[in-house]
Order: sequence, then structure tokens, then C-alpha cells
Amino acid sequence: MIIVLKTNLSNQEIEEVFHKLESLGLTAQLVKTKPNTTIAILDDVSTLPTHLISQIPYIEKLIRLQLPNPLVKSSKNKAIKLANGLSFGNNNPPIIIAGPCAVDEPNELIELALDIKARGAHILRGGAFKPRTSPYDFQGHGLDALKTLGEAKQITGLPIISEVMSAEQVDLALPYVDILQIGTRNMYNYELLKEVGRSDKTVLLKRAFSATLNEWLLAAEYIMSAGNENVILCERGIRTFETYTRNTLDLSIVAAAKRQTSLPIIVDPSHATGKEELIRPMARAAIACGAHGLMIEVHPQPDKSMSDKEQAITPNQLSEIIADTEMLYQTINKLDHSELIALT
Amino acid sequence: MIIVLKTNLSNQEIEEVFHKLESLGLTAQLVKTKPNTTIAILDDVSTLPTHLISQIPYIEKLIRLQLPNPLVKSSKNKAIKLANGLSFGNNNPPIIIAGPCAVDEPNELIELALDIKARGAHILRGGAFKPRTSPYDFQGHGLDALKTLGEAKQITGLPIISEVMSAEQVDLALPYVDILQIGTRNMYNYELLKEVGRSDKTVLLKRAFSATLNEWLLAAEYIMSAGNENVILCERGIRTFETYTRNTLDLSIVAAAKRQTSLPIIVDPSHATGKEELIRPMARAAIACGAHGLMIEVHPQPDKSMSDKEQAITPNQLSEIIADTEMLYQTINKLDHSELIALT
Amino acid sequence: MIIVLKTNLSNQEIEEVFHKLESLGLTAQLVKTKPNTTIAILDDVSTLPTHLISQIPYIEKLIRLQLPNPLVKSSKNKAIKLANGLSFGNNNPPIIIAGPCAVDEPNELIELALDIKARGAHILRGGAFKPRTSPYDFQGHGLDALKTLGEAKQITGLPIISEVMSAEQVDLALPYVDILQIGTRNMYNYELLKEVGRSDKTVLLKRAFSATLNEWLLAAEYIMSAGNENVILCERGIRTFETYTRNTLDLSIVAAAKRQTSLPIIVDPSHATGKEELIRPMARAAIACGAHGLMIEVHPQPDKSMSDKEQAITPNQLSEIIADTEMLYQTINKLDHSELIALT
Amino acid sequence: MIIVLKTNLSNQEIEEVFHKLESLGLTAQLVKTKPNTTIAILDDVSTLPTHLISQIPYIEKLIRLQLPNPLVKSSKNKAIKLANGLSFGNNNPPIIIAGPCAVDEPNELIELALDIKARGAHILRGGAFKPRTSPYDFQGHGLDALKTLGEAKQITGLPIISEVMSAEQVDLALPYVDILQIGTRNMYNYELLKEVGRSDKTVLLKRAFSATLNEWLLAAEYIMSAGNENVILCERGIRTFETYTRNTLDLSIVAAAKRQTSLPIIVDPSHATGKEELIRPMARAAIACGAHGLMIEVHPQPDKSMSDKEQAITPNQLSEIIADTEMLYQTINKLDHSELIALT
Repeated sequence: MIIVLKTNLSNQEIEEVFHKLESLGLTAQLVKTKPNTTIAILDDVSTLPTHLISQIPYIEKLIRLQLPNPLVKSSKNKAIKLANGLSFGNNNPPIIIAGPCAVDEPNELIELALDIKARGAHILRGGAFKPRTSPYDFQGHGLDALKTLGEAKQITGLPIISEVMSAEQVDLALPYVDILQIGTRNMYNYELLKEVGRSDKTVLLKRAFSATLNEWLLAAEYIMSAGNENVILCERGIRTFETYTRNTLDLSIVAAAKRQTSLPIIVDPSHATGKEELIRPMARAAIACGAHGLMIEVHPQPDKSMSDKEQAITPNQLSEIIADTEMLYQTINKLDHSELIALT
Repeated sequence: MIIVLKTNLSNQEIEEVFHKLESLGLTAQLVKTKPNTTIAILDDVSTLPTHLISQIPYIEKLIRLQLPNPLVKSSKNKAIKLANGLSFGNNNPPIIIAGPCAVDEPNELIELALDIKARGAHILRGGAFKPRTSPYDFQGHGLDALKTLGEAKQITGLPIISEVMSAEQVDLALPYVDILQIGTRNMYNYELLKEVGRSDKTVLLKRAFSATLNEWLLAAEYIMSAGNENVILCERGIRTFETYTRNTLDLSIVAAAKRQTSLPIIVDPSHATGKEELIRPMARAAIACGAHGLMIEVHPQPDKSMSDKEQAITPNQLSEIIADTEMLYQTINKLDHSELIALT
Repeated sequence: MIIVLKTNLSNQEIEEVFHKLESLGLTAQLVKTKPNTTIAILDDVSTLPTHLISQIPYIEKLIRLQLPNPLVKSSKNKAIKLANGLSFGNNNPPIIIAGPCAVDEPNELIELALDIKARGAHILRGGAFKPRTSPYDFQGHGLDALKTLGEAKQITGLPIISEVMSAEQVDLALPYVDILQIGTRNMYNYELLKEVGRSDKTVLLKRAFSATLNEWLLAAEYIMSAGNENVILCERGIRTFETYTRNTLDLSIVAAAKRQTSLPIIVDPSHATGKEELIRPMARAAIACGAHGLMIEVHPQPDKSMSDKEQAITPNQLSEIIADTEMLYQTINKLDHSELIALT
Repeated sequence: MIIVLKTNLSNQEIEEVFHKLESLGLTAQLVKTKPNTTIAILDDVSTLPTHLISQIPYIEKLIRLQLPNPLVKSSKNKAIKLANGLSFGNNNPPIIIAGPCAVDEPNELIELALDIKARGAHILRGGAFKPRTSPYDFQGHGLDALKTLGEAKQITGLPIISEVMSAEQVDLALPYVDILQIGTRNMYNYELLKEVGRSDKTVLLKRAFSATLNEWLLAAEYIMSAGNENVILCERGIRTFETYTRNTLDLSIVAAAKRQTSLPIIVDPSHATGKEELIRPMARAAIACGAHGLMIEVHPQPDKSMSDKEQAITPNQLSEIIADTEMLYQTINKLDHSELIALT
């Protein structure tokens, strides 16, 4: 960490800063840069509460050389085991999560679950509690939808993922789901992160559409520091000036996150693009740059979906994406282990 | 509402859309625009759940001409009465909310509260629960801080505002605070909005740093449609590419919001700029464009603040801002009622 | 086009709007939506100057259903032929453009050109005129650099691409380059677009880091409407709140642009990410989602590059990317023509 | 400047970096921070070309503590004198620039010029060359419009400002205008900046809607380092995710820029908001936070304006803004010199 001091301090004032740093057990070195003198802290301060340093007087600003997310960083070569024996992350083949935006008719959901399983999907998604911008829009069927998901699991054997938005909803969801989803609007809901961090379910943490990589990894650190090591990251598009797509899918951050943590990281091209015709090419791009899986909205008749119809695809289109994923994963694997690379 | 149909529909398909709209009791008109045919809905559909229309087949997209926030829109000439007899909003003089980022030493807080009251502030702010990006940073003193705030209220008579982040924290805060604050990170936390909507406390709703005006007003609509009409809006800066300031203060949206609702709207220049030297000019600008109040971080010795020290100002600086506010409010009032304007 | 009228117009005022529209030869239809009455224009108005309609009184706003870029849209199945016999775009194998950020030592450039040609690159890039944020930073070797590029072309046979920023630089570059590059900072420089539109060289048009898809395609329309049909689009990252990467690579817009135009579209992962370790995964993602080529900064010793060293890769790394590109192109091609897709 | 080295360097490699720095005449100090060792440069390196340092091997990244804009920074207490005897900037009363978006009918312009002069405006604006997103939209009347502006100047005595987009247009404009305007789309057009930097006209430099404060001040540095000290900065809104307003007016950066340079800085609320009803409140806010002037689109009948009609105001509305400006300037001046502030 580099401490930039205010300008024109007296020697006595600078000494005072040094004494405070020493009383925290830190080793510091003075550097007479221009126009501001700086102090370098030579220790690793990644989990030291920032205010212990920042409340020392005479400091203009702090420059961190290292981010405070030791648990996220140290989780090496992690793969998360699913109920159906599959492993998520590391070098395992990509996992396909598919299902409708919101759970509606029970029969329709079970029929769809059987269909997507037959086509090769690994996990069933379905919304029971829906975060909607308007209070007058459909908010999900709640407990009824959770029960429908539980039934679908019993019949198909597919693990279930569903979104929760409050401690109360976590309690309701626990008996029915395998993976608790934290949606993009709740990534900064730290009380909820602590709550799911105390549960024994795997958590899928979507990136907030306004979150930096650093904030996202620290949100994962909240869950992990509460005791839950099974976190899957999910990129689903960020908010930018571009309005042609619903959001801007940020695949560079997927590649970047893979270099910072071994937590599995997947991509949701449905919410990222909001456009049915862009989902397949973005699914391909996600797998090509190393995503550990995909989360995709599927509806038997997208035109009749209760929400987000313009981004749902048909089961037939899902088959195409699954075929793409398998072949691209093989290609990438081959390229990663080819002699050319070994030589260079 | 304008419905843009998919291209190349048959007459029968278009008729099917009309029948569905009729079964919802809506009056529709066909418009043969190019390249897509459109259908105009002639009724007011501002609170009709969107999915009832959007799940009709053959629809490409919906263009809303009106936003679904009737309660926010209809709250005309609203002023919110505070415990100490002051009124917030409408044409009342601006309200000054001031206090430290986080509540720390009880004696220090009470001394500060007495000081800012003497200088003319109207409401005491202080964080008991702090949303922090890192789980390793200081998270607030919780219930102890709430009790300290309650004590400060008894001694000074100043109403209290403090942030809550979960249903549990709402319950803890109710006995001690007059205004529940929803912070920028929880504006999309719809379960929390419903929770404070069911309480009888005034709610201060900060704009999420990623929220559009529409999303912000709909978040207020969540609180109001749950039964609580006493909502104060607070602009505190949005996230943009500009990193010189902590956020980008969006005063145009303050002026725009005033034209959409009569809910009081205030500005937090401390979090918006993150820079002590920019708070005073931005406080001036906020009052000049019609903000109903200011929320400002004050610390007796900003250099020693536990968090956000670079954006806290001293009580003396607060006095300057209060003097600015009073004189600018008078100037604006005079201009709004001058003959020149009456004539034009 | 939908015209939203101001509220509370008299019948006579609305009639006046209709007369103005008729005098422009347009067919219009009144639609009594609430709260604003609208008028639909039933003709195709994609190249009608907007002001002819917008200056009609009583209009609140215009909603375009179609963008005004007929040339960009109608350029079907276009492939651009290069001097060395290769074709760019359509279904041709991806083109690899490689070279240093700035041209420095002639011998070094020629050695590098021979090297990247041997490794399979198709076009040599190199900056003669460098747009730099600071006037005190290196601005390129100008004409000397152009001559060096010309020499490299003679020796290697590789076509040359280099950036121009003014009419004067276009004149200087014409004898030496095959493709004129419009950089991200000059995409809105419409006078320059007209200038290169009047030349007979192929133009590579980078997306401005702040441009919407619409603005980008209209910039291409500027070049095409000036007479030059040979335009290649290049996505190089947009400016967002995320600062971990230099820019945010927007691959969704690559896929979207391919559905709007048949102009070739390539990706520059070097400037998009600004981080050497992210270039290879993003190059893979670009090819997987259908990019027609890649533009990559290569330096024999990136550590000694005069600019943008942290985003330059070595010739060995280029070999890896070329191998990736070839195998991924084959995989994608196979998937696009597999029976599965034919059946659905 | 702080140099962050790559990790795991040998002592010999670090010594090599030191030798290179010494050969540049720089004094450096080693700082053994974790996880990366850093080197602090103790000299002022604000105008040292970055590549001289960045091309030294073994460097991971550079952290500048000071921006490279010495001319912009050192221009203390600057006021720019106008042809009509008025002074722009410093503590002079705010300057009002007003006029139509585009110059159309000569008689109409002259009538408007006489009107706005009578109402108290100081400078006449009017577009001769219009940067338009679509090549099919109205591009301005060019030389004819410049001549009309020249005539308006002769009749009214008002100095003239008009936008130029190329070296050729600069030559055309020189005989007719007093201030050359660089528009938001050309702020990064460094060749044009150098061109106007070589002229003897005052330059008004609009901030690009995607520019950071740093980039904007460096664009001004381009003009000043080419020999022209008379630069006026103009904030006109930045591009963000918020689409309710045309752009997001960034007044914090106006206040920030005033603390970095004494160049005059004005605000264009017309383009920033794009909404007629928001111009007056934003003009007030701009003056309140210290802007040295305003640039406002005025049209005798905004409904009939050829472009940007929804953001033009009437001459009567301009009178209101001028009255606001005068009274707010007096209020601010009084506050800046009140005893209260003197005491604290």
C-alpha cells in the first residue's frame, strides 16, 4: 500500500503518521516524491480494516497494490460437486443451466424439465420470486413455484437453482433448491450475502450490472467469509450507454476473473443481450474464452412467456447451443494442450 | 402504449392479437407503419401488469408512452412533517441533514449533534449499519449506535435518520429513528422496500448509483404501494466513466424528478463527489436548481473519521453551507416570483 | 416513424401537422393514444432529413422504427478483396492484422513483418501518426514511418494498414498503405470520414469508445455515401465504469452488427483489454461469435515497446492466436452446417 | 511517479531499471512493498514523454501522482478579453452566449441577434457547419452561414462564435468569427486542436461526452502548447446510462476544473439536458457552482427550429435566465466575501 500524504507537512507531522503506523505493527518507508511525499507500507495489508490507516491524520489518499479478497484468491483449483454427480468448474466440461424465467404452470414446467434434460442440460432454473422494476408487474408464484421446482427435481433428477431476495425467502427455498441464486440487483445486499453464506447450499452470485470486478469478488468474499466456500460467479452483462442490447456482456472480465480466482464462473447470455438472436453467438464466445458454464432462459413457446419473452429461446435452440458448447470445449481443450503452446 | 408487431404477419395472426387485447378490455387501433405494423392501445395502461400484454404472441416490442408510477405522480404539493414541527418539501425552506458517516463514540456524537443544531442543521444523520464493499472493513456499531442516536435525539430534539439494510435492522431501528434510510446499494432490494413501506416511518430513498429516473421513481412506487406515502428522494451521484469524482452528481435528474412528482427531493453532495473541496459548490448548485434539502457528512475532525474521511467537512464548513443555502433559497424564491417571469 | 404530439392540442393544430406532413408527400394516420395523441407515418422515411419533420410545430418527439443507414444495410454478402488476393469478410477465413503499435526502427519493423508473415498473419499494421492523450507524448514518426511501412510491403508482400487523423495525413499515406484506419477518437470526425470516403482505399473504421451501434453504422454510412463501399468495421472496446480492463470489449455488438450489415467486422482485443494476458481468450471469443478477423499488437520485445507495452504480445503468442483462430473457424463452420441445425 | 515492478525480479534486473532511470537524469528510490516492489521517481516528470520510462523492461505499471498539463495548470487568474471590451473568466460577471443551433434565414438571424443583445446576451452563437450523426441530415449552410454571422456582428457588435471541424473550415471561419468552437465530437481530434492552437482566435473547447477531466485538460494543453493561450472550457454533458436527459450534465467537474486551472469554464445546459424545461434550473445550478458563463440555444420559434428543437428556448426564456444569472452571481459573490467565511 502507498500512502500519499497531504502537501506541505512538517517533519513532526510526518513523524506522527509513522508513529501511528508503527502502533498498528506496520513497517513503513518514507519516499520523497513530488509534489506529494508518500509512505510505502511494506507489509501485506489485504485484510487490515481500511479505516485503521485512513483515519490517521495528514493522509491525502491510499493506493492499494493488492485487493482485500484472500478467500476468493486462495480457492485454488476448485470444483463444486452437484447432487447429480457432476462437477462444476476447474477443467470439467461446461455446465448448462436452463429453464424458464418464471415458473408458471406445474405441468408445463415438468414437461420442459424433461425436455431440456433429454437435450443435455444439467441444472433446471426457474424463478419463484421475481425482482421486477414495477410493483405492478408479476412478482412470481413464490412457495407454489418452489414446490413445482421440487417436484420437477424428483421427476427429472436435475438439481434446481432459484433466486432469493431476503432471509425469509432463503428459508422458504432451502427445502427445494440445490443452488441459491443472488440476482444482479442484490449483489450489494450484504445482509443477504451473509445469510446465504451461513447456509450449506451452493450460491450462484450474479454480478451487479453496475459492479466492478473488485466489488464482485468482494461480494463473493462476503459469502465465503461467512463460512460458505461453494460460490459460483455469473456474468450477466453490465449497464453502459449502449441500449441496443439490454446490457453489455463483459467477457473480458470472465477471462480476468479466471486469473484471479478458481471459483467457477459462468455466463448468462439471455439477460446480457436481451435479444434471442444474439444468445447463440454470445454462448459460443463465452465458452471460447473459458466460461465454466451457461445459464439460459428456455421456454416451450417464448412468445407466450410471462416475462422477458424477447430473450427466451426454444428447446430446439438450446440443443444447438449444447452442441456448440460440447464441440467448442473440445476444441479449446485441444488448443490448450497442443505442442505449439508447450514449446513457446 | 404502442405495440410493434413482428414483420410479415398474416391478417389472421394480427386479428388474434386484437382478440387477446379485447379480452383484456383494451381498445386497440391498427397502424400500418413500415417496416413493422404497429398497434396502438388507446387506454391508460400504466398499472396493467406488462406480461398480460407482452405474452401475447406475434409481438416484437412494446413502447410505453407513460410510466407505471401513478402514486408517485399523483402525490401533488406534498410536504412531509417532521417531529420537530418542520416541513420537508413543497415550497418550504431547504432541510439540512448533517452528521458523521458512522456513529462511533457516544460523547463525540452528542457533542457534534449539539454543535450542528446550534449552527442550524435540522436532522441528525449517523450510520449504525454500514454497507461496506469489503467484509473486512468496519460494519458499524449496530444497536449500540442506534441507542447513541436515540440519546442524541433526547438531548437535542433533532429528528434522527439512519440506514437499514434488512427487515431485522428495520425492527431494531424503529424505536430510535424518525427516518429510515434506504441506501444506494439497496434501492433495488424490493423486499426491503416493501418492508419499510409497511412501517409508519418516513423513508429516505437514495437513488442507486446505476438507476435510471424511471427505476428510481418505481422504487418509490414500491414503498408507496405498500402503504407508506412519506417518501423523500435523495440523489447521491451515479456511476459513470469519470473517476475524478467518486460518482457523478446528476442534478438534471433532480430538476426532472421535481417535474414528475411532488415528493421532496434532496441531494447528498458528500457521497456524490467524495471530495471535501467540491461539497460546498455542489451544495450551492443543488439548492439553486430546486433541491428541497441537503444531506452532508460532518465530522469534528474529518482527518480522524473512521470512514469516508476525504468527503467529511468540519462544523465550520457546515455553517458556510447553511448560510449559502439560506441566501440562495431567498434569491431563488425572489426570482421565481419576480414580475419578469409573471409577464412571460 | 411514430410522432408523439404535445398534449392538449386543438383539432386545428393537429390538422396543421397533417397538412405539413402531406406537403412533404407523406401518408399519416392519427392514433388517439393516452396521454399523448400520436401520428404514425406509413412511408419509409429512413433517408428523409429529420429536420423536415421535427421542425413541424406541436411535436413532442419522434420515435424511429428504422435507422437511416440504407447503404450499410443493403451491402449484402460483401467481401473485400486485398492486394495479396485474400478476401475479407463474408464466409472467408478470418484475417489476421498484426504489427507494432508505432513504427520505430526500420530494420526492426521489417524483421517483425517477415516474422509475422511466416507465422500466418495477413496484413501488417503500424502507426505512423499516433493520437496521444498528452501533447508531450510520442506522436509517431510520420512520413518516415510511412516509408518504412512501404518498404516492409515491398519485401513481404503484406498489405499495409495505418491510421490517419486529417486530410493532410490521408494524402501522405495514400502512396504507402492499402487500408486507411480511422481510429476510435476520430469516428465522429465527419469531415475526415467524407475525405476517406472520396479515396479509393479500403477504410477500417474503429468504433468510438463512446459510440452506439447506430452511430457507428451511420459513420460507415458517411464513408459509403461519399462513394467508398469498401468499409471494414472494427470493435475495440467501449468506455464503461469498469477500469480493470482498459475498455470493455463489446462482442454482443459484433454479433448484432453482423445481423445489420454484411460489411466485414473485426475485433481488436489489444486495445479493448489493454492487458496482454486477456488478449488470447478475447481473440478466441471474437472468432467464436463470428468476427471476420483480428487486429493485434505484436512487438518482438513488448517490454521495450514505445507505447502500449502492457498490451503487446510476442510473435510466439501470435502463433498461438493464429492456431486458435484456424481451429475455431473450422469448428464454427462445422457447427453452422451441421445436420442438427438443418433439422430445427 | 511510482513505478510498480513485475514480481520476482532478480537484483540484477532491478539494478538495470535503475541504470535506465539514471541515464534519463532521474533520481529514483527503491521501495520494497508487497507483493510488488516499487520504485519512486523523486523528480517532477509531468512533461517527460511517458514512453521513455514505460519502455524500460521489467515494469508492470506506472502510477502518476501529477498530470502532464503544466500550461493549463499554470495559467493563473486568467481572463480573456473579448472584442466588445468584456472580459471572460476570473471574477468577471458570467458571459451569456446565445443564438440558434444552426444559422438559417439571414433576416431571421439578424432579428434574433438584435433581440438577444437587447436582452443582455454578450456573444452570438450560430452553427455554419453542423456535425450530424446521419449523413442524410442537414449539415449547415457553411460559408453562407458564416457570412450571415459576419453581417450580424457588424450590425449588433456582438462577438461571434461558431463551430469548426477541419483545417479547411478554420480557414473559412477566420474572417467572420471571434471564437472558434471545438465541438464535443472533435475534442480528441488532435490535428484540429493543433490547427486552432496555431490561430490567433480564442478557442472554446467543449468536453467530449466521453472525456475524463484529465483528457479534457490535456486537450486544452494541446491548444496551448501550439501557442494559443486563449482557451475557454465548456462542459456540455457526458454520456451515461441515463437516457431521460440527452446527456448527464457534470457540474462537479466544473467545480473541479476551476480548482485545477484558471482558464474560464462555462456550461451548455441546452445540449446537456436536451429538454427545454430543464435548461433554466441547470443554468441556475451552473452559475451557483461558479461557472464563468452559459451557452444557450435560443430560437424565435423553437417549434420551427431546423435541429434540436426540443432543447431551444425562446428569447423571453433567455431573459429569465439572464435575470437569474445576474442575481445569483451577486448572491454568490456576497457569500464568497461574507464575514462568516473570513472567520473560519
